[in-house]
Amino acid sequence: MLNVLVTLDSNYIKPLKVMLKSLFLNNQKERFTIYLMHSSLTSNELNDLDDYIKAHGSQLQIVDIDDSYFVNAPTLLHYTKAMYYRLLAFKFLPEELDRILYLDPDILVINSVNELYNTDIKKYLYAAAYHDLIPIKEVNRLRLNQYKIDAYYNSGVLLMNLERQRLSIDENTIFEFVEKNHSKLIMPDQDILNALYSKQIKALDEKLYNYDARYYRYYKMKTNGICDMDYVIKNTVVLHFCGKRKPWKKSYSGKFHALYKHYEKLALY
Amino acid sequence: MLNVLVTLDSNYIKPLKVMLKSLFLNNQKERFTIYLMHSSLTSNELNDLDDYIKAHGSQLQIVDIDDSYFVNAPTLLHYTKAMYYRLLAFKFLPEELDRILYLDPDILVINSVNELYNTDIKKYLYAAAYHDLIPIKEVNRLRLNQYKIDAYYNSGVLLMNLERQRLSIDENTIFEFVEKNHSKLIMPDQDILNALYSKQIKALDEKLYNYDARYYRYYKMKTNGICDMDYVIKNTVVLHFCGKRKPWKKSYSGKFHALYKHYEKLALY
Repeated sequence: MLNVLVTLDSNYIKPLKVMLKSLFLNNQKERFTIYLMHSSLTSNELNDLDDYIKAHGSQLQIVDIDDSYFVNAPTLLHYTKAMYYRLLAFKFLPEELDRILYLDPDILVINSVNELYNTDIKKYLYAAAYHDLIPIKEVNRLRLNQYKIDAYYNSGVLLMNLERQRLSIDENTIFEFVEKNHSKLIMPDQDILNALYSKQIKALDEKLYNYDARYYRYYKMKTNGICDMDYVIKNTVVLHFCGKRKPWKKSYSGKFHALYKHYEKLALY
Repeated sequence: MLNVLVTLDSNYIKPLKVMLKSLFLNNQKERFTIYLMHSSLTSNELNDLDDYIKAHGSQLQIVDIDDSYFVNAPTLLHYTKAMYYRLLAFKFLPEELDRILYLDPDILVINSVNELYNTDIKKYLYAAAYHDLIPIKEVNRLRLNQYKIDAYYNSGVLLMNLERQRLSIDENTIFEFVEKNHSKLIMPDQDILNALYSKQIKALDEKLYNYDARYYRYYKMKTNGICDMDYVIKNTVVLHFCGKRKPWKKSYSGKFHALYKHYEKLALY
């Protein structure tokens, strides 16, 4: 049984189903417990999601969130307390879980997650990938300059060492960081992760575990042609549709558009 | 049981398997008899294909071809007698078949073929689609000018009315046409089909049954945006990778590259 964590509002239910469909189809020998942290889903939406996941032989667990826990937590202009869910999941997940794989809903999982899930993270809080494309890297590194980060990890795919997190992450450190830097934070949870924990993250290969679907040509060029379409389809585990333009929107266009729509059809129709 | 015809040499076995995989996956309630006309496949290759098709719950039938039949048939520089297989299939297929769907191997079948297969063709020899993009249409129309064709049909997807063909197609008409026009013929079987039988072909909607994968933008523009990626993935039955650049080649690039590679992985690995 593999543990997967998702955090969600209603707008993302359809993409979540597409992501889950791709996960289930490409990992048919596995069963999953999908832990869901949410603040606004209706009971109809939750029941529908429960049925959907059961129909695929896996199960849904709604994570109970004690709101009083966030009484002292600062919020930002466009972000609610939900921005802390991913980072503080370890507080709300069952004690017996030692690891969980967090996945964003704007993802397709197109190969087996086994190696990713079983990555050795004994000495780390997380495993994640950073996007090495220079503009992404530099902008974020400079923004969080004072925290002396080497890499700016993407928080869309996070393998979590829950045991270690329970021992060493203090929510007050996070809340204080947000208070102090609220004007600088663009992607709050990702920024927090990097500023506070960058050195305790095990680096994953982004081509396999967090392939930014906008940059097909870049990956291919950087690897002298090795990371071509054949390589991606056979080897990449997580295709991540980063950025503002999403493949479920009308105006989208990109290398993996047809593939996304293919999974969307399987998931929703 | 649906009848499908393919004609093949060894170079196309892999693409054929990909095409068949897509056909089977998207038509899981159907069973198919795949009739194969070939001249050069080894018994190993044929056994492998037989196993592959059986594993998907369908069956392979090798069509017996009497070579003496082609003794008087003219050939062209780069083409063998195999160029006649598609047009003269009705001579070699079992008497009891009344219709068959011919499919090129450079195709993905991404939705149900039922409506296509059951198209009313009582009054026609074939059903096929023509590609309405002006350059394709005009070049071919002008080349076969004297035969006064209105449309130049693509022969990659051909629904055949075998009963009517047995009554009205004479191989000598075809052989004479080739003798007379050998210098003009670029795609011989397709040219013959159009020059001799264009008026007895029922026109199919190319967007549904013979979508030229090179021209996504053209289809979308021509339909004021209706035929977008969502429409294609949900409605198009046959995606046809026309032209010299093929999606199983290293250098390929195109809108449906990732989708092709996805089916290729399912079919071959």
